Amino acid sequence: MAKELKELTSRSENYSQWYQDLVIKADLAENSAVRGCMVIKPYGYAIWEKMQRILDNKFKETGHVNAYFPLLIPKSFLSREAEHVEGFAKECAVVTHYRLKTNSDGTGVVVDPEAKLEEELIIRPTSETIIWNTYRNWIQSYRDLPILCNQWANVMRWEMRTRLFLRTAEFLWQEGHTAHATREEAEAEARKMQEVYADFAETYMAVPVIKGVKTPSERFAGAIDTYTIEAMMQDGKALQAGTSHFLGQNFGKAFNVTFIDKDGKSDYAWATSWGVSTRLIGALIMAHSDDNGLVLPPHLAPIQVVIIPIYRSMEQLDQIRQKVYGIMDNLKKLGISVKFDDADNRKPGWKFANYELKGVPVRLAMGGRDLENNTIEVMRRDTLEKETVSCDGIETYVQNLLEEIQKNIYQKALKLRQARTIKVDSYDEFKEKIEQGYFILAHWDGTAETEERVKNETKATIRCIPMDDDNEPGKCMVTGRPSARRVLFARNY
Amino acid sequence: MAKELKELTSRSENYSQWYQDLVIKADLAENSAVRGCMVIKPYGYAIWEKMQRILDNKFKETGHVNAYFPLLIPKSFLSREAEHVEGFAKECAVVTHYRLKTNSDGTGVVVDPEAKLEEELIIRPTSETIIWNTYRNWIQSYRDLPILCNQWANVMRWEMRTRLFLRTAEFLWQEGHTAHATREEAEAEARKMQEVYADFAETYMAVPVIKGVKTPSERFAGAIDTYTIEAMMQDGKALQAGTSHFLGQNFGKAFNVTFIDKDGKSDYAWATSWGVSTRLIGALIMAHSDDNGLVLPPHLAPIQVVIIPIYRSMEQLDQIRQKVYGIMDNLKKLGISVKFDDADNRKPGWKFANYELKGVPVRLAMGGRDLENNTIEVMRRDTLEKETVSCDGIETYVQNLLEEIQKNIYQKALKLRQARTIKVDSYDEFKEKIEQGYFILAHWDGTAETEERVKNETKATIRCIPMDDDNEPGKCMVTGRPSARRVLFARNY
Repeated sequence: MAKELKELTSRSENYSQWYQDLVIKADLAENSAVRGCMVIKPYGYAIWEKMQRILDNKFKETGHVNAYFPLLIPKSFLSREAEHVEGFAKECAVVTHYRLKTNSDGTGVVVDPEAKLEEELIIRPTSETIIWNTYRNWIQSYRDLPILCNQWANVMRWEMRTRLFLRTAEFLWQEGHTAHATREEAEAEARKMQEVYADFAETYMAVPVIKGVKTPSERFAGAIDTYTIEAMMQDGKALQAGTSHFLGQNFGKAFNVTFIDKDGKSDYAWATSWGVSTRLIGALIMAHSDDNGLVLPPHLAPIQVVIIPIYRSMEQLDQIRQKVYGIMDNLKKLGISVKFDDADNRKPGWKFANYELKGVPVRLAMGGRDLENNTIEVMRRDTLEKETVSCDGIETYVQNLLEEIQKNIYQKALKLRQARTIKVDSYDEFKEKIEQGYFILAHWDGTAETEERVKNETKATIRCIPMDDDNEPGKCMVTGRPSARRVLFARNY
Repeated sequence: MAKELKELTSRSENYSQWYQDLVIKADLAENSAVRGCMVIKPYGYAIWEKMQRILDNKFKETGHVNAYFPLLIPKSFLSREAEHVEGFAKECAVVTHYRLKTNSDGTGVVVDPEAKLEEELIIRPTSETIIWNTYRNWIQSYRDLPILCNQWANVMRWEMRTRLFLRTAEFLWQEGHTAHATREEAEAEARKMQEVYADFAETYMAVPVIKGVKTPSERFAGAIDTYTIEAMMQDGKALQAGTSHFLGQNFGKAFNVTFIDKDGKSDYAWATSWGVSTRLIGALIMAHSDDNGLVLPPHLAPIQVVIIPIYRSMEQLDQIRQKVYGIMDNLKKLGISVKFDDADNRKPGWKFANYELKGVPVRLAMGGRDLENNTIEVMRRDTLEKETVSCDGIETYVQNLLEEIQKNIYQKALKLRQARTIKVDSYDEFKEKIEQGYFILAHWDGTAETEERVKNETKATIRCIPMDDDNEPGKCMVTGRPSARRVLFARNY
């Protein structure tokens, strides 16, 4: 790339600008000519592919299969489920025509007014409606259940204010849609997928999450319960990293999906849906990266190890190559992705900065002295610490180091969250602390009115009612009315 | 599934109906509520996933990376390349509005007239325009080239007559888009990807293909040359299974994508694009399947081996299970996907018919007699031949059998094509033979007029000018004018 590396805005200076700079400079994504729609560049997409592969395996291990449903949804489908239409019909891309024609002066194309659709079609903002309309024909008996489908797809929501990865008009995601014979089974499915997401976030993204359930006003439109995982970004704001919905019989009823149960009685099928999206890439960046660039967890890094030669002559470069090729082969045998950058148009210093920006977890550098001593310089991206180690056993050393980095960045994120999560009992203190970027556990009287008031006055929302054992009752910090337990407040992305 | 197995229409009775029945009954896909858009069901999607995985690996081995570009394209982009707009602007889904609102009587939603887009957006029928508009900013110098991107995506072309997999309004595909510094490099890329597709078709799909180049009238809209692979279906018709286009500087010029070459001069970048789609699933079905159902090549079969127990008591079933679990473990260690169907609500005969319908390459069945004798019954789907073999070494036996089936169905398809490919020198004979379903190698005078006349009179098109050594000149079968070589005519899907 001809582009010069430039300094990033620092996080302390302007966190939001730092994020924006980083996404662009690390070549992850960029805005396109279509408002709100991003181009995911190869390096960003490589992270998504790693995420997809791991999640897809997890879905299959838990009994799910993939399928594909139409991009377009008849407008009338959205109105079938009363709450769903409120949530999704409002800002969406509407297809009204199916043909263009050459304009009168022959210089371009215009919409052909004769090719107007009888019923407009919506680009899917989510697929419950078209999928449940399909399931109606797949389900007759309890023997046809459960149906455990997932789809990898693009969706579109006409967002007015967009940010790369975090909120875009078009985004990529997976959406699971399951149908069950009993309420219990559907609820268990929704909670199971929340666990799958939590495990993915913590084990692969190295992002600790709080598992909880949404309040009624924060639920998915059409859900009985929304289970969520909430992560803290470095500025103390929350990011909803995945949701899983127990939909009850709402869609079964809206699309008349019935089945004959074991006792010969007819009932509506029970539903769940669950999804994570390219937003996770935004979460990954904001959770770990620093003023030098990306910090990628080794389990998701497209390149785990980069090797850079430092040489004074082509002869020396050849000697380094001979040595390095052996190391690369051994690393690859361990399943480690490694890149050797011997491009001759960039100096080592530029390369060092570039791979720091790109967040490659481990950098190896070999020069003339190393050749003589059978050593290699190892730098770990998370701490930027350097060490010179022997080439003997370097492969195992690197393998262990990658695991160590994975653990370390998780611990770092966990410590940050622990330090910035507090219990607060007065609304005044709440207002002060929320301004400073905290996760706040506070008592709430359970009403939508109080929730709305807090939101309007502090921009903080109830991220979730945590699913932990901390069930001590108390009094609402705002109204003083009784509260069954503390809930999690934060500002959020 | 509660659905009963029913007889398929036979191929000889009605080939087209046979295909339609098979897609539905084998649970591959179905029509959706949206005209022309299909639902790809889990079993059909599993075939697509296998195809994707193999192709994706091949693309990466040849140096490509994946990326993602917007679904929507500004209408004006289509007009930039004169031929491209003729080919693609005509039948496409047009987004004109970005919001719905509740209608006046509160019973549904209508398009909000105030949310009209300034410029209409088109759902991508193919992505050359939006991608080359993006590449403009990625390319400054020859050092930025080549760019070798691929994307896996959905696209939409408003087809009036649709058939599941073969021709649908929305379909899934991959589209490679590459940019190069020289004409030679771009041409080599286009031919390389034709080779990749040919190897995939022959090695994995077990479908022999003819490699060739399209005539000007059959080229991709905007291409200088279109390379194709053409396969014969069992009815003697051709199916275009993949195309790779050398686009010259057409899109470089249309989107002003220039670069500074090694000598410091500015030039437009050279382009290719290439794609295969879910249409390949249609090709797979029509090339191999029979009146009993699907015949899937082992390399692409979601389930390669099914094991069915035949038992008189639960005790006997337990004994069979013990034996079968060991065999399954060993098969899985060899990387073979295997399913044990011990469902108690279906009889063995029903299961046999079901897995024949689904095209599972190898069926194993074990009953009481087999238990006593340490044997198992093996049926191969391609020939329907049965054999009873010893359980000792059954895993290797099955592994070899799968490879044997893969080769056999390729050979069978190749023999069919050889038997139904003929050289013809008179137009009268041509008309007779084309009616009977042949690939016809005939001399053509190289004019679009003659090509058009043959098409109108016989419904046969020039599938390609084959890239083989058969370069004997002759006289056009229609006009008698000189012809440099024979070209391939056929009716096609």
